[in-house]
Amino acid sequence: MERDQEINVLREQVRSVTADIIRDVQKRMELARQIGEIKSRKGIEVKDEKVEQEIRNMVLSVSSQAGMKPDFALRLLNILLEESESVQAESRQKPQRQTHLGIFMKAKQMEADGKEMIHLEVGEPDFPAPSAIATSLSESFKLKRYHYTETRGIPKLREAIAKRDSVTEDRIIVTPGGRFAVFSAIVSLLKPGNELVVIEPAWPAYKECADFVGARTRVVKASLEDNWVPDLKRLEELISPATQMIVLNYPNNPTGKILESKTIDKIISIAKDNHLYVLSDEVYADYAFEMRFQGLLEFGYDKTIMVSSFSKRYAMTGFRVGYGIAKPEIIKQMNKVQAVGITSVAEPIQYAALAAMDQGHGDNVKIMKERIDFVCSRLKDMALPFAKPDGALYVFPRIARHEDLELVDRLLEKGVALAPGSGFGDSYTNHVRISACQPVETLGKGLEKIASVIRERS
Amino acid sequence: MERDQEINVLREQVRSVTADIIRDVQKRMELARQIGEIKSRKGIEVKDEKVEQEIRNMVLSVSSQAGMKPDFALRLLNILLEESESVQAESRQKPQRQTHLGIFMKAKQMEADGKEMIHLEVGEPDFPAPSAIATSLSESFKLKRYHYTETRGIPKLREAIAKRDSVTEDRIIVTPGGRFAVFSAIVSLLKPGNELVVIEPAWPAYKECADFVGARTRVVKASLEDNWVPDLKRLEELISPATQMIVLNYPNNPTGKILESKTIDKIISIAKDNHLYVLSDEVYADYAFEMRFQGLLEFGYDKTIMVSSFSKRYAMTGFRVGYGIAKPEIIKQMNKVQAVGITSVAEPIQYAALAAMDQGHGDNVKIMKERIDFVCSRLKDMALPFAKPDGALYVFPRIARHEDLELVDRLLEKGVALAPGSGFGDSYTNHVRISACQPVETLGKGLEKIASVIRERS
Repeated sequence: MERDQEINVLREQVRSVTADIIRDVQKRMELARQIGEIKSRKGIEVKDEKVEQEIRNMVLSVSSQAGMKPDFALRLLNILLEESESVQAESRQKPQRQTHLGIFMKAKQMEADGKEMIHLEVGEPDFPAPSAIATSLSESFKLKRYHYTETRGIPKLREAIAKRDSVTEDRIIVTPGGRFAVFSAIVSLLKPGNELVVIEPAWPAYKECADFVGARTRVVKASLEDNWVPDLKRLEELISPATQMIVLNYPNNPTGKILESKTIDKIISIAKDNHLYVLSDEVYADYAFEMRFQGLLEFGYDKTIMVSSFSKRYAMTGFRVGYGIAKPEIIKQMNKVQAVGITSVAEPIQYAALAAMDQGHGDNVKIMKERIDFVCSRLKDMALPFAKPDGALYVFPRIARHEDLELVDRLLEKGVALAPGSGFGDSYTNHVRISACQPVETLGKGLEKIASVIRERS
Repeated sequence: MERDQEINVLREQVRSVTADIIRDVQKRMELARQIGEIKSRKGIEVKDEKVEQEIRNMVLSVSSQAGMKPDFALRLLNILLEESESVQAESRQKPQRQTHLGIFMKAKQMEADGKEMIHLEVGEPDFPAPSAIATSLSESFKLKRYHYTETRGIPKLREAIAKRDSVTEDRIIVTPGGRFAVFSAIVSLLKPGNELVVIEPAWPAYKECADFVGARTRVVKASLEDNWVPDLKRLEELISPATQMIVLNYPNNPTGKILESKTIDKIISIAKDNHLYVLSDEVYADYAFEMRFQGLLEFGYDKTIMVSSFSKRYAMTGFRVGYGIAKPEIIKQMNKVQAVGITSVAEPIQYAALAAMDQGHGDNVKIMKERIDFVCSRLKDMALPFAKPDGALYVFPRIARHEDLELVDRLLEKGVALAPGSGFGDSYTNHVRISACQPVETLGKGLEKIASVIRERS
């Protein structure tokens, strides 16, 4: 009874402090609304990174004084910031954004409506997938290989990958596409309010995954002028106690850049100093034209997650199979997400991947290099500036004005689908990405139309 | 300049009120810790639904006075409650929990180590998948049907599903297993702090998906005594402004229960009154033995998400393909999650699903009914109480004591894998789930071992 009395007194205090919190939060929303009105009158952007950073630092300092866990404090703050933003943004229109995937869907729709289309927008090699897959698929059916498998993938496939990439099989998870490896790594290792550093131009998926989990994406912008080498000083400045991960993607989509080893060394040293994960998306690793690509695993940093895929290497995009490699503790986290979301990759698909590995990817890389060279030579003729790709499947030229969406729309009408630069970062509205996943003849036709539209607009 | 001044003054106030919030939240955590200590000394449970309900009502009244949206206030409160609970639970041991999937992995490992195992733990029909799939797979390879598809699935498959389920194809999304339809519905429609109502015993995935997105799961516990019919009064009591969704799963896993239409009517009317989504997991719809199963779509409630799968109907578990049906606005939300996580289901798998639909599922249902009848008759001999299943693939008998995990472990040693009742809800430690996905002969052997272990323990 005495104890109950004790609990009741404490509960009364809980109620009273809870009421204070609610009232203060509402006060905060009211202030946010007022600021929003002023911003709207003055035409100022809702989001202000600098102000956010200040308040984040302030919260970290107050919470540390009060003895609150910093990640919980930042999570709380994030919820407040989100609500403030949505209060401020209520009356505003969102900026138009279009990714290569959006254009792909649009182009597919136009094709369905009878229009002929040259697809230079998606990174989908047109090569045939390895022929051994045909046998594997029919064997899988005969042998009833269509049951639930271990969530991380069938042992045989994990062993083959382990051998190929010189790691132990407990470091591997087989995923439905490299995309799900990226997704499961980001959503399992980041919490709401955490931050992710991305080097732009970048595949939009990293930010999308961060948004999904309520984490914030901080951006280092690389530029053609710097030959797409990121400014590492800027990278260091961006890092805060909320930062959890740096994302690398080399050979890069969309620029084709491969960083030198000493640059990677520096990035790893920054990551080490700040205890950050490094997510290295290496789905284009095989497409390295001028030098051998040195994967992140070779650098031996233990908070690395390497993502790879069968999509580009073996032209198996539509089989949706990829994998992640990391230390077992990380794989365990990623595996939890996979168990909740999909149970496992389809068993026949896993055997198809195994068959592909046995057979190899033939001349795919050689052919891709010839195509990239062809695209580069035509872009030179058009006098569009670009950096010659070290690898991957794309060229990312600059166009005369900040009008990527207009150009892409005009070209869609002409029957050529291109990826707008802004899909890889807001500041690349004066770039487009040309994918070389078509035979030279088709590429030639597409580039001719691009040239004519650019002439017409200049 | 003047305006900037105005913004700066407001921002200063934002900072100050934010600091107040953080300090108050920490004060609240400190109080929770003290209450937790007293509870721990007295052996009182951490969670107290009545106290929670009181504080929820208080928050609603304070927020309404302050002009805050009630759903945001409750979201905030739920985040505070969660953190308090985790603070209070820190010093306590978590109850051991083991799901059917965990047992499956354990059994697989024991098999790999050379042990013979009868699998009565997973819901994986042993029937052969439709033979038309063999042709479809080899055709897909020949026709290079292995590219990115529309995220929602290939039009042909969506059209076939639309025809089957009498809906328009813009209401369909093809997913990697029914599981991903559940996942994408829950994570796209619920926010952190929202609530989900689940009727237990239940497939653990619903709660896992809610946990994943930071939503809370409220539970209505059905019991064998009530013939697994949920108490709808209790359901109504659980609903608060934070509630977003009710999950139904009939024919039920694990009990095999099918609710009467008038019960569904009442649940829908509760959902309507409270503007709730109803997620209806109908992956066992075809396995209805005594009556035609009336799917939720037939009830015409527009906030329904129906989930189905090829896994159980066509014995295609390892192909990982299922689908969701809902109004286009909801499908759009689910599609966003799918685009971020996986791009699309593998194209050859989608064609395999189409081939399966063309062929049909033959005698699967008839055979399953015979097996369920067999299991039931053997359980009667053992004098284990159960409700005869109306459908699905399982029987969920009660065992003499609350010792499901001990029984399951003992049976694993004997070479029989069973699903523990507690995997479907904490209070079902005196149940086990027997899956009838084996030929009668195998079932007989497994049940004999179960009988002998139960004798040995009584």
